[in-house]
Parts: sequence; C-alpha cells; structure tokens
Amino acid sequence: MNTAIIATGSELLAGLVKDSNSKFIAENLRELGFTVTGIYLANDSKEDIIRTIKCASQKAELIFITGGLGPTEDDLSRNALAEALNKNLIYSEEIALRLKNFFAARDYEMTDNNFRQAYLPEGAEVIENNFGTAPALKLESNNKLFYLLPGVPREMTAIFKNKIIQELEALSEKKIIYREYNFIGIGESTLEDKFNQIKIDPKIEKSYQAVKGEVKLRLKVTIADTQQKKEAEKILAQAERKIESELEAYLYSKNDKDILEIFIEKITKSKLTIASAESFTGGLFAKRLSDKAGSSKFYKGSIIAYSKATKIKLLNINPDTIEKHGMISRECANEMAKNAAAIIETDIAVAFSGVAGPSNMEAKKPGTIYIAIKYKDRIKSIQINKNFGRSLNRYYATQIAFFELIKLLKGES
Amino acid sequence: MNTAIIATGSELLAGLVKDSNSKFIAENLRELGFTVTGIYLANDSKEDIIRTIKCASQKAELIFITGGLGPTEDDLSRNALAEALNKNLIYSEEIALRLKNFFAARDYEMTDNNFRQAYLPEGAEVIENNFGTAPALKLESNNKLFYLLPGVPREMTAIFKNKIIQELEALSEKKIIYREYNFIGIGESTLEDKFNQIKIDPKIEKSYQAVKGEVKLRLKVTIADTQQKKEAEKILAQAERKIESELEAYLYSKNDKDILEIFIEKITKSKLTIASAESFTGGLFAKRLSDKAGSSKFYKGSIIAYSKATKIKLLNINPDTIEKHGMISRECANEMAKNAAAIIETDIAVAFSGVAGPSNMEAKKPGTIYIAIKYKDRIKSIQINKNFGRSLNRYYATQIAFFELIKLLKGES
Repeated sequence: MNTAIIATGSELLAGLVKDSNSKFIAENLRELGFTVTGIYLANDSKEDIIRTIKCASQKAELIFITGGLGPTEDDLSRNALAEALNKNLIYSEEIALRLKNFFAARDYEMTDNNFRQAYLPEGAEVIENNFGTAPALKLESNNKLFYLLPGVPREMTAIFKNKIIQELEALSEKKIIYREYNFIGIGESTLEDKFNQIKIDPKIEKSYQAVKGEVKLRLKVTIADTQQKKEAEKILAQAERKIESELEAYLYSKNDKDILEIFIEKITKSKLTIASAESFTGGLFAKRLSDKAGSSKFYKGSIIAYSKATKIKLLNINPDTIEKHGMISRECANEMAKNAAAIIETDIAVAFSGVAGPSNMEAKKPGTIYIAIKYKDRIKSIQINKNFGRSLNRYYATQIAFFELIKLLKGES
Repeated sequence: MNTAIIATGSELLAGLVKDSNSKFIAENLRELGFTVTGIYLANDSKEDIIRTIKCASQKAELIFITGGLGPTEDDLSRNALAEALNKNLIYSEEIALRLKNFFAARDYEMTDNNFRQAYLPEGAEVIENNFGTAPALKLESNNKLFYLLPGVPREMTAIFKNKIIQELEALSEKKIIYREYNFIGIGESTLEDKFNQIKIDPKIEKSYQAVKGEVKLRLKVTIADTQQKKEAEKILAQAERKIESELEAYLYSKNDKDILEIFIEKITKSKLTIASAESFTGGLFAKRLSDKAGSSKFYKGSIIAYSKATKIKLLNINPDTIEKHGMISRECANEMAKNAAAIIETDIAVAFSGVAGPSNMEAKKPGTIYIAIKYKDRIKSIQINKNFGRSLNRYYATQIAFFELIKLLKGES
C-alpha cells in the first residue's frame, strides 16, 4: 500500500523548526512494509494544505497529516481535510465533553478557542489523545484512509505507538527485509562497479549511500508472507557470503554499527591499551578515542607533534629520519608510532603523518597520508593517496586507522 | 516570489536519514525575503520526482531540487527535470572535461558511471561544484526557475552560499535587515531575561537560538525601500551599542563569525605560539586548534594525558599535587598549563581537567571543569560547574577557552 505523510506548520517552512514527526512515521511505515511515496511540508494555510492533500493523494492510499489540530486560528488541518474531501465540519458533543473533562481535570482555564477542536469532518472517527487536547482523527473517503495526528511530537508518537500501529499491521500486505553493510576505503561508484560484478538474486534491490568517510550498501527484499520470508532470508544470506568474500577488504560492519563502537567493544575485550602520536590529524584521533564514556580503560594519552621541533623533542624522532625522508613519510610515521608506544607505555600506538591540505607540504600533495600502527614487535604501515579536502582527509585517516585496528584486534579476541 | 524545495532520496522516505538540506535552504530563503510554499521529499524514482516537480510548481516560481545528481543508477534528478519540462538530455563536453580533471587532480579511478553526470537538460546552466563531482544546474522554463543542487550537505551549502545567494538577492522584492550576536557563557533564557531589560526600538524583532555551546541573538527589521533601510540601520546600531555595553561579558561575535576564526585571526596577528595539555577533553582542543589551514603558524603541539601515570610522566605533574588536590583541581590544571608551555616551548598553553561524565570522578560531578591558561608570568584559571552531558561538556570547555584566549589576545593586538 502506498502511503504519504504531510507535516503542517509554517515554522517548518521558515526553516525554524525541524520536522521530526515525518521521519518517525516514515521509519515505522517502512518497518511495517509500507512504501512512503512522498513527504510533504505545508504552511498553516487552508489553501496550501488542501493543495498538498491533493498532491499526496495522487499516488498514496494511506495519508498521515500531522499538526494543525490545536485550538488557535492557524490550526487548519481539520478544515482543510473536510474541504479537500467535500465533507462538512460537524460539531461533536462527545469531543466537547472530553475537552471539558480534560481542562477540569487539570484546572486549566478553557477559552472559546478550545471548542474549535470539537469540530470534525463528517464521518471522522476520533482517536483519543491522552497527552493533550487535540484528538487524533481517522477518516476514510474514496478508498483513501486519512489519519490526522497532533503536531506535538510527544503526543503524536504516543498515539501512533499505542493506537495506530496495530491498525496498520492489519492493513500491511507485505514486509520488507533489510541488510546493511558499511565499507571503508572504497568510493561509492567503485563499490557499485565491483558489486555489479557479483551475481546476487535479482529479487534483491540494492542502494548505495556515501556518508562521511565511508559508504553504505543496503539490500532490500520485499515479501508477502512467512514462506517468502524464509526464501528472502536465504537469498540475503547468500548475498552476504559473497559480500564477505569478495569485498572483505573494505567491509567493516554488517549492521550499521558505528566504527568507534565496534573498535571500543574489541579493545575493551582485549584489555590492551592504546596511545596516539599525531601530526596532521592534530588530535582528532585522540578526540575520537575519548569520545565515549569508559575510554580511560584503554586510552592512556597522545602526543600531538604539530611541528618539526615537537616531533624531535616530544616524540624523540631522529632528526636524521626527517632529514632523509621528510616528516611526511612512512619512516617518520613508523618511528612516531614506535616511540609513542614506548613513551606513553601502551600496548598499541597509532601514528599519523600527512598533508591535510589545501597546500602541498614537503612537495607532497594534500591527501598524502601515512599511518603506522605499532603492536607487539610489528609495525603495520598504511599509505593513502586520496584528497577529499582538509577536513575529510583528517577524518578519513582516522577511519582507516580504526578499521585497521579492528582487523588487528580480531586476531586477539 | 513563491518558492518550493524538493529533496530527493529514498533513504529520506524510508526514515533512515534526516533531510537537513531543506531546512538550510528554507532558512536562507526566509532571510532573503522569499516565501516557501512547500517542502517535498521524493523517492529516487523518476516518476515520483516528476510528479513532485509538478506539484511543487503549482504555486512556486522558484524551485530547488537537492540530491539525485550523483553517478549511480538511482541518481535521477537530471532526467526527471528534463522529462517534467519536456526537454532533452544532452551530453556536455565541458562537464565531461571538468569531471576528468576533478578525478585526475585527486588521483581517483574514473568509471563509466561517472560520465552520467555529464548529461544535463537542454538549456541548463552549469554551476561549478568545487567540493565534489556533481555539478549544480540552473534552468529556466515557462517563467519558472529551477536550481538542481547536490544532496551532500557540505557540497550543497557551499554552492548555495558561494554561488546562489547573490543571484537570489537580486530576485527578492522585500528585504530584511539582520544583525546577529553570539554569546558564550550564558544560557538562552538568562540572555532573554537580561536583554528584555534593555530598551530597544519596537520595530526590531528579536529571536534567540541555543546552538552547540553558545547562544545566538538575532535582530530583524523588515524594510520596503532605501529610505526605510537608513532608519532600520540607525535603530539597529543603537541596539548594538546597548548590547555591547550591557552584555559585553558574554558577547564574542557581532557577525556570526565562528569563534575559531576570530581566535585564529587574533593569534596569527599576535605571532604568538600555543600548545595544550588535555585530560578530559581528550584532544578536542588540539583538534580544533588544527582544524583550519595555516594553523601550524601558531599551533605547535599538545600532550593528551588521559591517565594519572601519563600526567606524571608526560607533563611532569608533581605526584604531591595529585595526592593533595586530585587530578580534577585548579592546582592540577594550573600545573598542566605551566609545564606544557615549558615542555612544548610555546608562548601560551591551555590546560583542561574535569569530569566529562556520565559518572563522577574523584567524587566530583560531571561538568566540573578546570581550565588554566598560561601566558607570560600569569596563569588565568577558570572553573565551570555546568553539566550538559559528556559530549557538550567537552565542547563547552573548549568554547570557554577560545573565548578567554580572544579576550587575552585583545590586549596584545
């Protein structure tokens, strides 16, 4: 069944307030197996809401309208829906009584305005709102089903969860099964290219999304019943095995978990300690290491050596190394990692040296990055040559480091 | 002029990702004096985007479409707009060349997919995107003006601010004059309280906005012509003088400039150098010091001492100080700042010690923060007791430090 969501409120179109209601409803509709064909934000104007209801109804049979159910003059959703469907507004004694009780129970003063809320489109069914004065409404007309919900997120979500979800479950014909995979170290179009070369069941729909320093792949199968569910899970499992074997080098998560969370789980379990020695990342890795509560269990400290002098003085980098290879070099990064582990006395140390940009340094281009990870008697050395701009270059380096650390810690747990 | 915004992306309608682009555009359009008549979210389906373009065009003459300009199969905005307006898609040698150069400059691998981005609706004007491969487009048809913008927020906002705002200013009939003031160290409601006691011209509308670690005050006067503009500027200047004198202790910016930008201007001019010694901020201050290009001129390095042992070993903190006062103390922060300036050999050193949260430490509550700034023979010491939650506690401490540094550097320039 196709659905649409309309959020009313001039403050939304002025960019003053974020519309969080539509995302909440959309997420729930997806999980219930509905397709959302459009989300529409409309001003508190009857004409605009009517126009929007007509647009939304073109493709959808199930339409949610949030906001505009309050007692003031700019609350026009009831009137707009009635007019859009050629229905009269009628006065409901039942709602009027409910409003009176609501106000009496709370010792609120009741104004004439409040009785505006007792008018509703002919044929509408009232859904009680236990958290506010605006009752939700449900109305069927010309094979389309409309839900009018209050705009206050707390009231809307309560009514949706407690009253509406059950009704929707009964309406939903199909369900959708999702799988999500997160990749680091590969671009969106290269991933699509590589993945297109892998044969997966054509019933699986694929979509890609580039997010900060990583790419998400989402697989989706639509099913109609329990029998199909088993089949869908089978073909998704087959696809997953192929992703794991063919794209392993870039895959870091199979359930959209944050990379930091995965890292923290692993290092906490390993009981190892970590430090960092940073040049062009300037403390970003240290900051991320300490973002979450409990990080003092594994994170001991960092030395940010942002100049040649501090590299030599704080990290004991041999001036000959810099003389011979430059500060932006595999050799310098390796020495930074080795010395940081010794100075800060940790099991692991990660070092970063590179060119953040926008200018070249030591005749090296922005995006030239050296990462070194010291652990036990080995140093793993990584080189990157990709320029995403200053800010993302720094972030990307830390992403790669976390990915490499997760790989390394896999061997430990 | 009536405007509309269309955000494309199936992930938006699945409730998986928030649409932040539309709010950004809506906010800017409002400030430019335009009315937004609708915001529409559409799936990555050509049919859906065409339907949405038609709905949006009913009332609007200026339409923004974000997303769907990438290189993959689900990027369909170009095709949809062409079809909605009965235009052909044509291959642009110019864009193809630009794409090739973009990839070459970054040493990226280019796939056939990428050339999809070289097709554009007939008559479309290309607006260069300096941050990604998706060029923005501008197209006039039947007295309606369409802007197609990339969906990646960083790219979209950069193009909007650098290329589009000037064009829109010329189109807007009414003007609004704004003044913006940024405050640190005062809450939104306290600021409102204080400001309400100051008399300003009633033609000035006031609004407040709490943003990460600071509060914005916006003054607004709507004008119709040049005569009114002079008058508006006069009353705004009067209001500004009052703000400067009455709220000086919290005011850090009069033009919505980033605090980091103001700090960098001042320290660069002063030719002084800076270092940090961080405990609970874990490198966040170091990271922010090095966020902008050119920071190596003043920023030399940091020591992140996240444990007692690293405080003693890396920062030479006297164990007696910790024994007597604890690590979370004015005394420890002062010693950290003093020693960091000596070890890293800088003019200024800033130290942070505190409880990020959520748990107590040394029997001190989250939000107990000590900041010390060492400069010349003095140490300025600041204590904060405000708990905003772990992440904001850390950020707020760095905000206060930057504000104090700006005050200190004012005496130097």
